[in-house]
Amino acid sequence: MPVLLAPEQAPSLTNLLANVNTAGLNTFIADNSQPDPIIQGIGSLQQAGPNEISFLSNPRLKAELDRCKAAVVIVPPEVFEALKDRDLSYRLVKCDQPYLLYALLAQWFDRHRISRLPSGVHPTAVIHSSAQLESNVHIGPHCVVEADARIGSGSRLGPGCVVGEKSVLGHDCLLHARVTIYHGVQIGSRAILHSGSVIGADGFGFAPDPSSQGAWAKIAQLGGVHIGDDVEIGANTTVDRGALDDTVIGNGVKLDNQIMIAHNVHIGDHTAMAACVGVAGSTVIGKRCTIGGAAMLSGHITLGDDVHVSGGTAITSNVAQPGRYTGVYPFAEHVQWQKNAAVISQLSQLRRRVRACEKNQD
Amino acid sequence: MPVLLAPEQAPSLTNLLANVNTAGLNTFIADNSQPDPIIQGIGSLQQAGPNEISFLSNPRLKAELDRCKAAVVIVPPEVFEALKDRDLSYRLVKCDQPYLLYALLAQWFDRHRISRLPSGVHPTAVIHSSAQLESNVHIGPHCVVEADARIGSGSRLGPGCVVGEKSVLGHDCLLHARVTIYHGVQIGSRAILHSGSVIGADGFGFAPDPSSQGAWAKIAQLGGVHIGDDVEIGANTTVDRGALDDTVIGNGVKLDNQIMIAHNVHIGDHTAMAACVGVAGSTVIGKRCTIGGAAMLSGHITLGDDVHVSGGTAITSNVAQPGRYTGVYPFAEHVQWQKNAAVISQLSQLRRRVRACEKNQD
Amino acid sequence: MPVLLAPEQAPSLTNLLANVNTAGLNTFIADNSQPDPIIQGIGSLQQAGPNEISFLSNPRLKAELDRCKAAVVIVPPEVFEALKDRDLSYRLVKCDQPYLLYALLAQWFDRHRISRLPSGVHPTAVIHSSAQLESNVHIGPHCVVEADARIGSGSRLGPGCVVGEKSVLGHDCLLHARVTIYHGVQIGSRAILHSGSVIGADGFGFAPDPSSQGAWAKIAQLGGVHIGDDVEIGANTTVDRGALDDTVIGNGVKLDNQIMIAHNVHIGDHTAMAACVGVAGSTVIGKRCTIGGAAMLSGHITLGDDVHVSGGTAITSNVAQPGRYTGVYPFAEHVQWQKNAAVISQLSQLRRRVRACEKNQD
Repeated sequence: MPVLLAPEQAPSLTNLLANVNTAGLNTFIADNSQPDPIIQGIGSLQQAGPNEISFLSNPRLKAELDRCKAAVVIVPPEVFEALKDRDLSYRLVKCDQPYLLYALLAQWFDRHRISRLPSGVHPTAVIHSSAQLESNVHIGPHCVVEADARIGSGSRLGPGCVVGEKSVLGHDCLLHARVTIYHGVQIGSRAILHSGSVIGADGFGFAPDPSSQGAWAKIAQLGGVHIGDDVEIGANTTVDRGALDDTVIGNGVKLDNQIMIAHNVHIGDHTAMAACVGVAGSTVIGKRCTIGGAAMLSGHITLGDDVHVSGGTAITSNVAQPGRYTGVYPFAEHVQWQKNAAVISQLSQLRRRVRACEKNQD
Repeated sequence: MPVLLAPEQAPSLTNLLANVNTAGLNTFIADNSQPDPIIQGIGSLQQAGPNEISFLSNPRLKAELDRCKAAVVIVPPEVFEALKDRDLSYRLVKCDQPYLLYALLAQWFDRHRISRLPSGVHPTAVIHSSAQLESNVHIGPHCVVEADARIGSGSRLGPGCVVGEKSVLGHDCLLHARVTIYHGVQIGSRAILHSGSVIGADGFGFAPDPSSQGAWAKIAQLGGVHIGDDVEIGANTTVDRGALDDTVIGNGVKLDNQIMIAHNVHIGDHTAMAACVGVAGSTVIGKRCTIGGAAMLSGHITLGDDVHVSGGTAITSNVAQPGRYTGVYPFAEHVQWQKNAAVISQLSQLRRRVRACEKNQD
Repeated sequence: MPVLLAPEQAPSLTNLLANVNTAGLNTFIADNSQPDPIIQGIGSLQQAGPNEISFLSNPRLKAELDRCKAAVVIVPPEVFEALKDRDLSYRLVKCDQPYLLYALLAQWFDRHRISRLPSGVHPTAVIHSSAQLESNVHIGPHCVVEADARIGSGSRLGPGCVVGEKSVLGHDCLLHARVTIYHGVQIGSRAILHSGSVIGADGFGFAPDPSSQGAWAKIAQLGGVHIGDDVEIGANTTVDRGALDDTVIGNGVKLDNQIMIAHNVHIGDHTAMAACVGVAGSTVIGKRCTIGGAAMLSGHITLGDDVHVSGGTAITSNVAQPGRYTGVYPFAEHVQWQKNAAVISQLSQLRRRVRACEKNQD
């Protein structure tokens, strides 16, 4: 459950909006004559209580406005116009991007509800004498920072993180508990890495050894991983190091949980991937793409900018044009599925039969 | 290999059955005049040795009974009737639910073969002074328990676990090595969490920021995770915290390895999911559902109670009726697959051609 | 970025080739009259610099030879014959298996660029008094080795690894940071396990308890895991312990990241699986198979030797014959996909309509 701030720590509505960067958002508080409400938290239209702020971003939820118990609701201009003269139990805030304003407010409440990790190195952490810790870093219990690694100023490592030899973190990064960074990995500033993520494990490369009955010779993975600024990486996601060159993740890329990025993949700036996606080796993905959950991208292919892949879709060849691409087998009641699936293995034959019918009719 | 108990520690058959809760199972030991065998372990029909107990639950394995070397075999009533007057090398136990009795016996042997973790806090563990440890807890080496967290009586944490700020574990939970629980997570009693599982990482929420060329603004995830009693969570499974409200997992839910539960998902009581399943955000799953391995559930959909999803199936819309649902592309020899798959991208055209043939025949 | 050796540490070409085992490779250095170049690293044809060695194994990259800046290029005999009399900016090495020679050279450079972990037990590691550490082992910070476990000579454990009770590692294994091995697991020699992998968690076994409204009784998993020699296991991959008998992984098996091997699976020698594969319980896979990324294998099925499964394919029944098997829904532009997918749920009906047309024509 979301924690409410104590009333004495909670801001007034005016102060709250002044404390987040609403530049460019066209925000307007209705009815300034009323007293300035104290805002202890932020909630959904359905759940927000009388000391919370809420928002309407999805027009399908408009009906919830009638039942909403929040103190304040952020609405888009057209809804504001429709409601502004009605007698409402909540204050209105007009904003042309309510969802973005919600994001900023949620960030503000998040910063104020959890103890900020203090600067300092926990005595149980093991820091190599050649590692560089810049100012104001937090290194949690049982962390390990290996030789020649560098942790940028303001970065915070939760319990049990490992940063390998010669790896570099930029400034103001947040590693939650138990993140593993192998040697030779470069990560930019303001990264957020979640627990269980592993950056820089060996790419999967083996040469068949014809002399030895099916045995594989390991191809040592000599490349690294290069991650830009403002990247978020989800829990238990893995990003492998390159074979010879680097695996590259651009600025502002967002990866959800349990994603697998294979060696030598390149991901363009601001591309976002939902959970359970797999990207095979050497594939290149453009900028501003979105990849739906559990989609799979084959190796050695190229996706252009602004390509949107639906969840569960296997992309097996290049996609040059922007647009949305899908390939999901439709589900059905099991018995119905069995009947239709049986035809799939005869489809090319069925097409031949249709051709024959057509010819007979000519 | 399963470890046998030393003969001096092993129970007799009568004592073994008396030591598990067979209430309601209708259990009957044949041939009480014979000496009571000593049972050192439990094995499959094929592998059990002369000091072990075995069981028949799958009727397809009946033929294995002839070759079985076990001391005792648990069989259902109809098999018991067929065998009871034959001269067998093993003792029979009649039970109307042999598989359930096997489960109970396996639990008993498991408790007796591995050293029970002793109560106490390992000196390398880091426990915040405000954390509450109830009676008889075991906190393993290198664990971290953060501020205001509470560990219920009898709960055991393996090496390297992390329990975040204000999170609560019920009593008699078992966390295997390296489980991560973020802040603000509630877990009921008797939970079993396997290594690498991560509970409470941020849900994947970002607002597009139109002013900034494709950049995403993070939506801080202010909700928590609420997990009921008797839940098991597999290795490297991730359960994300809610955006504003909680992600909710009901009582008796069983999650296998490498499952991804996104933010704000609700899972009903006693639902079980096999490995590699992904459930996207805000989806609601009913009670007593089973979800096959690698199935994928889209976000914002609802599955009713007693829905059974086959492995590998993508569920992309609501499923209200109980039943089994499937959607898997049938595999074939590669060249054959290529031919048929080529027709798939022309299916709607093929249907039109069939319609035309039909019309010509009218 | 790959790290170059300092010139004073770098070998000459002749020495480099003498230092890797080229037995059986038919390696020949052209133009022995020229001075022996110093080789500081290894790079791709596109990226290698003037102090590096490169190789051509994929004939499609032949055009890159003209732009290659490497000091030395390894080529197959037919390319060698075509080039040997031309005036090239690089030295040629002829080899009938350039890719295998590259693998061996990459291994050599890998050994020489990263500090070798020294023998010894870090003072923060927690080693049970009954555990056996053989000679020359490295036990990193915050490792835990439990009762009666054994670590073979020359094996190295990175930070935060856990080896459970009675588990055994062979000699010269490498466990990267944060590998978890449960109790009762046997691993052969020269294994490489990547971070976040979990070996020996409970298989997913529950008996329905009809008396209790959908509740599940846990089937304690009494088997272990048996892993052969020369196995590599990727980051966040999970291998579950057997229910009664062991889960078995043969010699030389290579598993990529985020793979799930369920209880009682058997994998034959030298089989390789790409990332995100799931193998359900009790399935048996032959020798020298390759399983493409995100393929899913149902439980209780058998794949013979030399079966090759394409990425994204669900194998739902036995495959006896060697060969390549595929089952992937072809992707398309979303609107086109919608049209075709709508026909899939009417396929058996469409086939009936074709039959009717055919009959009418008879």
